Amino acid sequence: MDNPEYRAGVIDLLGALGVGELTAFQRLAADAELAPTLADQAALAGMAVAEFHHFERIRDHLAQLGASVDEAMAPFHEAYVTFHANTAPSDWLEGLVKAYVGDQIATDFYREIAVAVDDDTRALVTEVLADAGHADFVIDRVRSAIDEDPSVAGRLALWGRRLVGEALAQAQRVAADRDALAAIFVGGEGRPGMDLAELGRVFARLTENHAKRMATLGLAA
Amino acid sequence: MDNPEYRAGVIDLLGALGVGELTAFQRLAADAELAPTLADQAALAGMAVAEFHHFERIRDHLAQLGASVDEAMAPFHEAYVTFHANTAPSDWLEGLVKAYVGDQIATDFYREIAVAVDDDTRALVTEVLADAGHADFVIDRVRSAIDEDPSVAGRLALWGRRLVGEALAQAQRVAADRDALAAIFVGGEGRPGMDLAELGRVFARLTENHAKRMATLGLAA
Repeated sequence: MDNPEYRAGVIDLLGALGVGELTAFQRLAADAELAPTLADQAALAGMAVAEFHHFERIRDHLAQLGASVDEAMAPFHEAYVTFHANTAPSDWLEGLVKAYVGDQIATDFYREIAVAVDDDTRALVTEVLADAGHADFVIDRVRSAIDEDPSVAGRLALWGRRLVGEALAQAQRVAADRDALAAIFVGGEGRPGMDLAELGRVFARLTENHAKRMATLGLAA
Repeated sequence: MDNPEYRAGVIDLLGALGVGELTAFQRLAADAELAPTLADQAALAGMAVAEFHHFERIRDHLAQLGASVDEAMAPFHEAYVTFHANTAPSDWLEGLVKAYVGDQIATDFYREIAVAVDDDTRALVTEVLADAGHADFVIDRVRSAIDEDPSVAGRLALWGRRLVGEALAQAQRVAADRDALAAIFVGGEGRPGMDLAELGRVFARLTENHAKRMATLGLAA
């Protein structure tokens, strides 16, 4: 952390991740109201709460770094607000697919970035991105819904494509705006960076993983 | 729990408390978006998460009693939905006052009921109603806002009156609808009940405590 540019990049990374967890918490909590039963509502609320506890871990770490949590997160808030405004689910199934696909795209994205940071920061990022074990709930519900009414599959497949498109659009916007965060990718003394070809492979992996998850849900990517 | 009528009353009590915690979680999470800063947003989100963990404890206890969580909570869902629909805060300060006053009225109410139940149930109710230590945050913010602009006090005082009015209206509606819950108040073999005079004193205590809390916030009751 002696290098001020690298420190700024780590604070950017944690700020982006933190506000992502906080906004995911709020959107999941709100989307839970679309649930057909109170038990389902509670299940999605539980996913929201898991995101909040991840946020708390990041907030604590930012405080340890002497960074203002508000200042670290604020530059990335708008991108998440826009993402969620553009991907408000219109029903329970869309909410479920978003909870799963949105969370997993973000996880993949931050794990790719974490390759280029120090061990401590990477350990934190990996920890807060650990699957809270809620994926099975979503997969089960979505597959059952498709079994009952195969016509929903087409609509949800389009929905999944929209989610990944909006997520990548916001990620690119953030990367273009934030030099310190982008510099993490490029690397520095003692840290391996990524060249343009590697960045291309990152995006290829993100979209491949997305396609695999859509298949798991029983949907075309 | 051998008495089926008493068991039904306890399940009603826990169902009402559980869906109250779950809906409070959702409303607080949504109201957090009114916050002026991300740190404030996170503070209110933290209060929401505390409510969710209380809900989880109740859900587990209902499951131990062999009760369907959905069936136990469903009869009380509408009353909470109506309460929240009638008391949607229009700004951050109203959201804060609601978070504090609403939670505390509910706490007082369920503590009064808990006097009439068995030790195990009472221990659970007392535990999930324990102050999560968030009150100080709300008191501090509301008092500061009044110091900065004394004109908000009148509006927030009216708001507090509306909150308690709506809460009592819903509580009375539920008590009138649910015989098993009402029977808990009346008592049974080995459990002291309440007569009409005692019920009157319960409501007097609820409104007195509300007045004290409003005073703590710097508001007329």
